[in-house]
Amino acid sequence: MRKKPRIGVIGGSKPNKKALELAYKTGKLIAEKGAILVCGGLGGVMEAVSRGVKDAGGISIGILPWDKLDVCNQYIDIPIVTNVGYMRNALVVLNSHSAIAIDGSYGTLSEIAYGMIYGKKVFGLETWDVPGVNHMQNPEEAVDLAYKEALNVVGGKPQG
Amino acid sequence: MRKKPRIGVIGGSKPNKKALELAYKTGKLIAEKGAILVCGGLGGVMEAVSRGVKDAGGISIGILPWDKLDVCNQYIDIPIVTNVGYMRNALVVLNSHSAIAIDGSYGTLSEIAYGMIYGKKVFGLETWDVPGVNHMQNPEEAVDLAYKEALNVVGGKPQG
Amino acid sequence: MRKKPRIGVIGGSKPNKKALELAYKTGKLIAEKGAILVCGGLGGVMEAVSRGVKDAGGISIGILPWDKLDVCNQYIDIPIVTNVGYMRNALVVLNSHSAIAIDGSYGTLSEIAYGMIYGKKVFGLETWDVPGVNHMQNPEEAVDLAYKEALNVVGGKPQG
Amino acid sequence: MRKKPRIGVIGGSKPNKKALELAYKTGKLIAEKGAILVCGGLGGVMEAVSRGVKDAGGISIGILPWDKLDVCNQYIDIPIVTNVGYMRNALVVLNSHSAIAIDGSYGTLSEIAYGMIYGKKVFGLETWDVPGVNHMQNPEEAVDLAYKEALNVVGGKPQG
Repeated sequence: MRKKPRIGVIGGSKPNKKALELAYKTGKLIAEKGAILVCGGLGGVMEAVSRGVKDAGGISIGILPWDKLDVCNQYIDIPIVTNVGYMRNALVVLNSHSAIAIDGSYGTLSEIAYGMIYGKKVFGLETWDVPGVNHMQNPEEAVDLAYKEALNVVGGKPQG
Repeated sequence: MRKKPRIGVIGGSKPNKKALELAYKTGKLIAEKGAILVCGGLGGVMEAVSRGVKDAGGISIGILPWDKLDVCNQYIDIPIVTNVGYMRNALVVLNSHSAIAIDGSYGTLSEIAYGMIYGKKVFGLETWDVPGVNHMQNPEEAVDLAYKEALNVVGGKPQG
Repeated sequence: MRKKPRIGVIGGSKPNKKALELAYKTGKLIAEKGAILVCGGLGGVMEAVSRGVKDAGGISIGILPWDKLDVCNQYIDIPIVTNVGYMRNALVVLNSHSAIAIDGSYGTLSEIAYGMIYGKKVFGLETWDVPGVNHMQNPEEAVDLAYKEALNVVGGKPQG
Repeated sequence: MRKKPRIGVIGGSKPNKKALELAYKTGKLIAEKGAILVCGGLGGVMEAVSRGVKDAGGISIGILPWDKLDVCNQYIDIPIVTNVGYMRNALVVLNSHSAIAIDGSYGTLSEIAYGMIYGKKVFGLETWDVPGVNHMQNPEEAVDLAYKEALNVVGGKPQG
């Protein structure tokens, strides 16, 4: 499990209906690729993408802002507590090999910025128009490219 | 000193000449108001604004990314080490009552995002065009409004 | 996996031979119980306990001090980067439902202290004699009690 | 102010009367030496030592666990928020050149451990009996040695 590509999905806790559908579809595709999802572990885009992963039999890591292991959305397999509040946004990105940003407010903007700071490729679906974000047409394209990048970072074929 | 308004100045480590001049002028004005400067403590905009503060007899706090108290620009009065790397960007904002963004790259973008997340007013000089940033014409206007906001947050007249 | 009891194992990076044997045995027993290991992810006691977990087919989470996902001992299944240096000691404990301390130096002492601060039960094998640590005779006793406590914290029977 | 020696004082929030007296006296002596106090900024030993510093005209830095700049004891001159909860214990030590431990519970134990981890000299007054702590007879002796060590770390004579 250690060498599997990890794709971070970042996005807001109060998305519109379209963003939720994009997130759910993105989650399903991540799991079908065999990648691990890393996200913030809470509601909105985070919950929809985790649900997509769960429905496709995948694994999701939730990087939580507080110190409560049992307070996260119900689809998270591996909750991780950080107790650093919104600074955990940086850790969502840092624990991923590449990232997909969906919709989102200022939390997502901070995560996009950290993606650039830490040198992670960020693919966007209806999100902030920030230089460096690779805007995608649909979840298929986003997951395809994010997976290839993550695989490249991990350094070869994924291993169990 | 504890109740003095604190103005955070965020900006990049590789600014152009104009940004350096804006930063230096901003620092002088912050000190002349009697406010305390909070910044990231390193080079570029951070160094120029700290130098401006120093030249006007003010006080500057530098929130550093590493664990070395003695590695910061020479104009910082109170270096603070955090050892959390770029996550310290959040702490620059959190230790300020209001903020001024000057020029800047992705680090500055993360700080603007944290400003919005934490509910701090952010005033901008030739910086990222992000919704919520109040773009200013010059350092005088920026410091004037940032100082009023900081004073408002502190809750009244500044005290020694 | 989310509701499985998590047992943290804390211990030094330069243990003697006896401590390594205790750690390996402890890891095997944790995996045989079906609990998840949480540790610091590096060498010494951390590596020995992770190896024990791996040999018994279990799962281990490594909470790492830096930002490099691929720098940890080879038996870690789920590396998590924190980039907060030795402050990650607190996060090893916070991500566990109970903890076992084996041997160890000041890092382990800090983790024992955080166990008490955060209200986690800590069981000890040849470790610091600090009030609050429940000293055990052998790995069997330590894992048995740490597992019962973790199960109690999780709140019932473990679930997949 | 930047090159002044900094002495960290660590101790519990619920000390007995004797510890409060030791802390107050320690604070006075730190200020009289011209050193800066670094502490956790809250009650008990932290408040008593800050009060001692204030009464002798010195300066104190309070490293706070939360994100509220205005919630600290009334004698703190420079509150710093970290928002990392009890992990801030590490930062109290890291922002000091040497440390004095007075009385204290597990929080103080974690700070003593971090003192050893980070290579800071720790002087003790009626505190945990941990190897590496230099136990002192009285505040005079503790401040004298802590000041000399801090001066040595700073590297020469203190500067404004």
